[in-house]
Amino acid sequence: MDTNCGVVYQGPGEVTVEDLDFPKLELAEQNGRRLQHGVILKVLATNICGSDQHMVRGRTTAPAGLTLGHEITGEVIETGRDVEFIKNGDLVSVPFNIACGRCRNCKERHTGVCENVNRERPGAAYGYVDMGGWHGGQARYAVVPYADFNLLKFPADRDTVMAKLPDLAMLSDILPTGYHGAYTAGVTTGSTVYVAGAGPVGLACATACLLLGAAVVIVGDMNEQRLAQARGFGCETIDLSQHADVGEQIEQILGVPEVDAAVDCVGFEARGHGPNGGEQPAVVLNTLMDITRAAGRVGVPGLYVTGDPGASDENARVGQLGLKLGLGWAKSESLTTGQCPVMSYNRQLMMAILHDRVHVARNVNATVIPLDQAPQGYAEFDRGAARKYVLDPHGLVGAAA
Amino acid sequence: MDTNCGVVYQGPGEVTVEDLDFPKLELAEQNGRRLQHGVILKVLATNICGSDQHMVRGRTTAPAGLTLGHEITGEVIETGRDVEFIKNGDLVSVPFNIACGRCRNCKERHTGVCENVNRERPGAAYGYVDMGGWHGGQARYAVVPYADFNLLKFPADRDTVMAKLPDLAMLSDILPTGYHGAYTAGVTTGSTVYVAGAGPVGLACATACLLLGAAVVIVGDMNEQRLAQARGFGCETIDLSQHADVGEQIEQILGVPEVDAAVDCVGFEARGHGPNGGEQPAVVLNTLMDITRAAGRVGVPGLYVTGDPGASDENARVGQLGLKLGLGWAKSESLTTGQCPVMSYNRQLMMAILHDRVHVARNVNATVIPLDQAPQGYAEFDRGAARKYVLDPHGLVGAAA
Amino acid sequence: MDTNCGVVYQGPGEVTVEDLDFPKLELAEQNGRRLQHGVILKVLATNICGSDQHMVRGRTTAPAGLTLGHEITGEVIETGRDVEFIKNGDLVSVPFNIACGRCRNCKERHTGVCENVNRERPGAAYGYVDMGGWHGGQARYAVVPYADFNLLKFPADRDTVMAKLPDLAMLSDILPTGYHGAYTAGVTTGSTVYVAGAGPVGLACATACLLLGAAVVIVGDMNEQRLAQARGFGCETIDLSQHADVGEQIEQILGVPEVDAAVDCVGFEARGHGPNGGEQPAVVLNTLMDITRAAGRVGVPGLYVTGDPGASDENARVGQLGLKLGLGWAKSESLTTGQCPVMSYNRQLMMAILHDRVHVARNVNATVIPLDQAPQGYAEFDRGAARKYVLDPHGLVGAAA
Amino acid sequence: MDTNCGVVYQGPGEVTVEDLDFPKLELAEQNGRRLQHGVILKVLATNICGSDQHMVRGRTTAPAGLTLGHEITGEVIETGRDVEFIKNGDLVSVPFNIACGRCRNCKERHTGVCENVNRERPGAAYGYVDMGGWHGGQARYAVVPYADFNLLKFPADRDTVMAKLPDLAMLSDILPTGYHGAYTAGVTTGSTVYVAGAGPVGLACATACLLLGAAVVIVGDMNEQRLAQARGFGCETIDLSQHADVGEQIEQILGVPEVDAAVDCVGFEARGHGPNGGEQPAVVLNTLMDITRAAGRVGVPGLYVTGDPGASDENARVGQLGLKLGLGWAKSESLTTGQCPVMSYNRQLMMAILHDRVHVARNVNATVIPLDQAPQGYAEFDRGAARKYVLDPHGLVGAAA
Repeated sequence: MDTNCGVVYQGPGEVTVEDLDFPKLELAEQNGRRLQHGVILKVLATNICGSDQHMVRGRTTAPAGLTLGHEITGEVIETGRDVEFIKNGDLVSVPFNIACGRCRNCKERHTGVCENVNRERPGAAYGYVDMGGWHGGQARYAVVPYADFNLLKFPADRDTVMAKLPDLAMLSDILPTGYHGAYTAGVTTGSTVYVAGAGPVGLACATACLLLGAAVVIVGDMNEQRLAQARGFGCETIDLSQHADVGEQIEQILGVPEVDAAVDCVGFEARGHGPNGGEQPAVVLNTLMDITRAAGRVGVPGLYVTGDPGASDENARVGQLGLKLGLGWAKSESLTTGQCPVMSYNRQLMMAILHDRVHVARNVNATVIPLDQAPQGYAEFDRGAARKYVLDPHGLVGAAA
Repeated sequence: MDTNCGVVYQGPGEVTVEDLDFPKLELAEQNGRRLQHGVILKVLATNICGSDQHMVRGRTTAPAGLTLGHEITGEVIETGRDVEFIKNGDLVSVPFNIACGRCRNCKERHTGVCENVNRERPGAAYGYVDMGGWHGGQARYAVVPYADFNLLKFPADRDTVMAKLPDLAMLSDILPTGYHGAYTAGVTTGSTVYVAGAGPVGLACATACLLLGAAVVIVGDMNEQRLAQARGFGCETIDLSQHADVGEQIEQILGVPEVDAAVDCVGFEARGHGPNGGEQPAVVLNTLMDITRAAGRVGVPGLYVTGDPGASDENARVGQLGLKLGLGWAKSESLTTGQCPVMSYNRQLMMAILHDRVHVARNVNATVIPLDQAPQGYAEFDRGAARKYVLDPHGLVGAAA
Repeated sequence: MDTNCGVVYQGPGEVTVEDLDFPKLELAEQNGRRLQHGVILKVLATNICGSDQHMVRGRTTAPAGLTLGHEITGEVIETGRDVEFIKNGDLVSVPFNIACGRCRNCKERHTGVCENVNRERPGAAYGYVDMGGWHGGQARYAVVPYADFNLLKFPADRDTVMAKLPDLAMLSDILPTGYHGAYTAGVTTGSTVYVAGAGPVGLACATACLLLGAAVVIVGDMNEQRLAQARGFGCETIDLSQHADVGEQIEQILGVPEVDAAVDCVGFEARGHGPNGGEQPAVVLNTLMDITRAAGRVGVPGLYVTGDPGASDENARVGQLGLKLGLGWAKSESLTTGQCPVMSYNRQLMMAILHDRVHVARNVNATVIPLDQAPQGYAEFDRGAARKYVLDPHGLVGAAA
Repeated sequence: MDTNCGVVYQGPGEVTVEDLDFPKLELAEQNGRRLQHGVILKVLATNICGSDQHMVRGRTTAPAGLTLGHEITGEVIETGRDVEFIKNGDLVSVPFNIACGRCRNCKERHTGVCENVNRERPGAAYGYVDMGGWHGGQARYAVVPYADFNLLKFPADRDTVMAKLPDLAMLSDILPTGYHGAYTAGVTTGSTVYVAGAGPVGLACATACLLLGAAVVIVGDMNEQRLAQARGFGCETIDLSQHADVGEQIEQILGVPEVDAAVDCVGFEARGHGPNGGEQPAVVLNTLMDITRAAGRVGVPGLYVTGDPGASDENARVGQLGLKLGLGWAKSESLTTGQCPVMSYNRQLMMAILHDRVHVARNVNATVIPLDQAPQGYAEFDRGAARKYVLDPHGLVGAAA
């Protein structure tokens, strides 16, 4: 049996790679809950996510010692006795939401708010604060419960899968998450769309918008390198460090100061537009209500939290934001918030990847690095690198690509 | 030709009934816009609405001299030359939203935000501040533009129609508006629902919830008389003047502290719950996010505005509210705001009324009064009467009922 | 341990009650498939279904010796080791479709065509020909696989449940099936609907139409007793033994010869309308395309089969029917066929029953009889009794009611 | 004033270009119905459609003397007095369905079955048998009624529009029609699709499938040239003249013998697969039910008629086809039939064309010819040319391209 190691949060600004126990089919953090419905994976790829950064920046209540990582792709090496359809050797994608497949919410496809995997509130994830105590997957090995339900099995042809692994690795979170944002914003054939944020989720969302048939996708960010990445696959861009008036910029592109649909891929650490912004947690949402056309919809996959100890003001510390609801109401707008229920989209998106309809790894600039370089990856990502870091714990992704 | 008169806003707290010019098929307020697609109605019933009260209370920028009234039911007495399918003598319901039937939004059924009827922004209404300058319908006669598109024709049997006029009069606004709130909140067979507000829209919404098959409808308000009205047709109620914790009250009724769906029928003049509330414009929305289950939806037919000169704080004056978005996000909730596009629902609801599936006049306690008693109606309604006042300019509703 | 017995198909026209082995958590008919995800139920109520009659009339290839019954309500008395959320003592409803909760179709809510429970084709059911070999539930005890997924748990209050058992027993099939027909036909607030067939599914469908807010529900059948049953809860009726022209009859009721939506609750053993009908398998579908308005939809929960050895003509023997598709096309109609995915509706409908919004047992004339009187029940039902027979294997339903 | 001429049906197999009266804003064929809501167009492009061929082949009851053509793109040169938003000089696309914008069906977006434009039944079209007597648009000038509602206005930049005219000309029918077929079949991101027919509608449908994000689009036809056209933009193909078993061919491509969704772009003149097919009007529909996966949907934009005097058997002569409904039912399939309501899609598709997301003219091999060569175009198209003929009455399309 191989040994295990993974990425551990040590405190604000610090992650390290540490030895870990080899995974077992039980969860000590939930009183030794038995996981005979689960499997153990050899992790083939596991990505660093912007929401990990919220924790590492100390903007949540994550405890030191937490193993990070919720974007997991792997090979099944052991199956619990109640697993029936997943087999050893299967190559699989793991939705970041953990779901039981047996509660009302799962039956209604709301797998992001499963009722049976977190004793505190609906919804769970791997390696995440307040999300049930499940172990993170930025490691050599990981456990996935309710494997028959949760896992998306890749096709049998191993070479095909390994060749596309950097793309397929995006199925665990950012491609479905970006797609969910676009889809719930009503993006469809011929739409004009504004995507706030050009980090990996924003770029995945822009990718999804194009896959959904959008006519024009406009991405706004303050990081010129990330905007260049967006332009590289056909998006228009707005440099928010230079331009505070998003509607005006949209008008220069479209001839009208508004779009059909808008998606917030930034979340609660939003910063004010223009040269002297500063942290303004509601700025993205208010901008989106402003530049979305009447009867339009706004998708909000960007994370908002109930507790943000590092927030700049008292209201934001408890997740209360000053929203221009009067404006949104006058325009009959709708808002959809929350975690993406990955399972609602990942099979379809896998098909699009396998048949070369979408090139998400290229679009987000997927960058494969060894597991032990995770700390550097975190640091570079935090400094704004226009990259999506894919950890490669067994050196197999680099080899295949 | 008969003479005309109607209800005129004179300033905060004061409406009077004044002589008016007989309507013409043109609109001076929009540079004499020609309305050959319009008709002139003899108004049979025209209701006082809670949103009229916002104006009369001086909580908007409505100018003195405005003829009020957007809930109109009437008989066609003159048709413009471009009217093809509506005929003199037709009995009709007028959706409060004015719509052209020819722009993108109308073609997509978003008639609440028509692009061609208000030069300032999408959307128009009769007798309403900032809604295009169209004349109000709390009068003996009124003009309806784009009549072939806007009007809902009642069946030919005049006696049937007149007998049900108090119900049919609710089709111009509150029954579709309440239904829209329920529908966009996802209310369906077997739902548990919380309706905030037991004014006429709240009661119409509760009525709509039952029509949609809801299992349990819980209505919250601070006015015991209005709550009694809700109990009268099968709702559970929560007296918010006594109980600040809505979740706790819901738990006493349902066994769990949350509902499947929630509807805000209060809007921007919301008051804090419990004995010492005071005005708290975000309190209803925050309560609804709190007591709606994960993956649930919140409908917001209650009016929120972009300018509220009488608001208690600076943010509210420009329609900015402190929303607990972090909480809503954690629960993957969605919000639908805006005016009800009446035309999306009124034909169906008319059928339900005509075939005795719904008794909205009874449920909202429709109270027919002569046009010249409108000032008293406004005053009593403002004092919290558990009534929906129906003005009867020609004395025909009272006669039929 | 109690002994087991149940209703066994002996050949055309004959069923008997026979001793049966006590159920085990494995399925011999599928090579001893292990069912540790399953439970054993003490059957509290199990209904005779019209689709059982197709088999008993010899109109399918059902083998002698088959234990019948797919409408099961019971109490859990033993749970397999992989069952996590269902407990002994739980009172539950069993959807007639057997589903794994782990395949693509189940994840997409198409539990009527689960891929993992029948080796021949998607979809399985208890006690049914060509449906996977699962044992029937018209017995004292029965097995339900994938229990955490399949079972709908009733509330904890046993007395409430037992008092409503005749209604709750309709959740396993006919109420969701009728609802599915109505729902897929687009029945909603204010609809006019024609329901073909006044057997239990037709009456349940009419019940569902009213629950969905239909304005007028018209039921057609040749059995006057069943039509009287429909009239008893507010439907209009057409006696097809007297009137061949359904459109003409609809016109007499509605003033127009067509309805918004239509539902086929008859299926492949349809008979021609009027006094000299004879078997005409396409007559219902062609009638529905004729009397549904342009852009309307037709729901087809009535069973059509791929093999009908007793059919009157060669085409019908292989399930090929002469459909007036040209007519349907000219009217832009849509058709939805197939088994109802019960799980999509049963929780909501349970809520409607528990809160007294629907009285399906009364509407279908639920008639509780002991298990050993099943043969008489089958015979009376086959002769056209306007009843839905509920078998009561332990004498508990009668006692409660 | 210029003179007018157009394509006239003379009898089976014969069309000629004849002088025509200059259009007027009235319709003699409907008792001189006034069309002050209409406009006169200078026709810039007008395409020959496969459904025109049904008439020209004598497979309908079209009368000699009928001016053909329902795919019209033009410039407004005269507006009726009730036209408010369309102006002289506007470049516009005309949906082939004529719709009033004022009836229930139009308000519900079912513009293919408008109730006010055809006295015989819902739905009308230009230049088509049994479709209201409206004049065809394969002419130099044409009338469009209810112009504010019906017309899709192109952007103001005339050069852009003229450069893309061969693509934009497909908005009047085949691109929306193909899209409607795909959309109603449920085609979405990652779908596998089978499109029956590689004529212009089939190729437009395949184009739409890709735009909707389909992973694999398989097109079947008997015409190798047309299949080559499909392969040219990324489709897989099946030569039905060689292969009778479509499922087997699909399995060779996908590994499974079925697809997620299927679209019938053939219609009632279908021919049996394999070398000795012969006319078999139900063969396409039965094949689609066979090769569509359980719970899948079938879109049927291909035309089926109520009267086909030239049909090979008695049933087909009245539009009655032998459908394998038992098979479809066992798989829980759905069918959507009828004319595409063009207005539901054309604005979005125009946006996709203008922003280079779709190249439909290239994919269908749009071939611009002068109006007076229409007879040759008809003849070549009838012989199976892999082309979509675009008539260019004023020589402006060729000039721009």
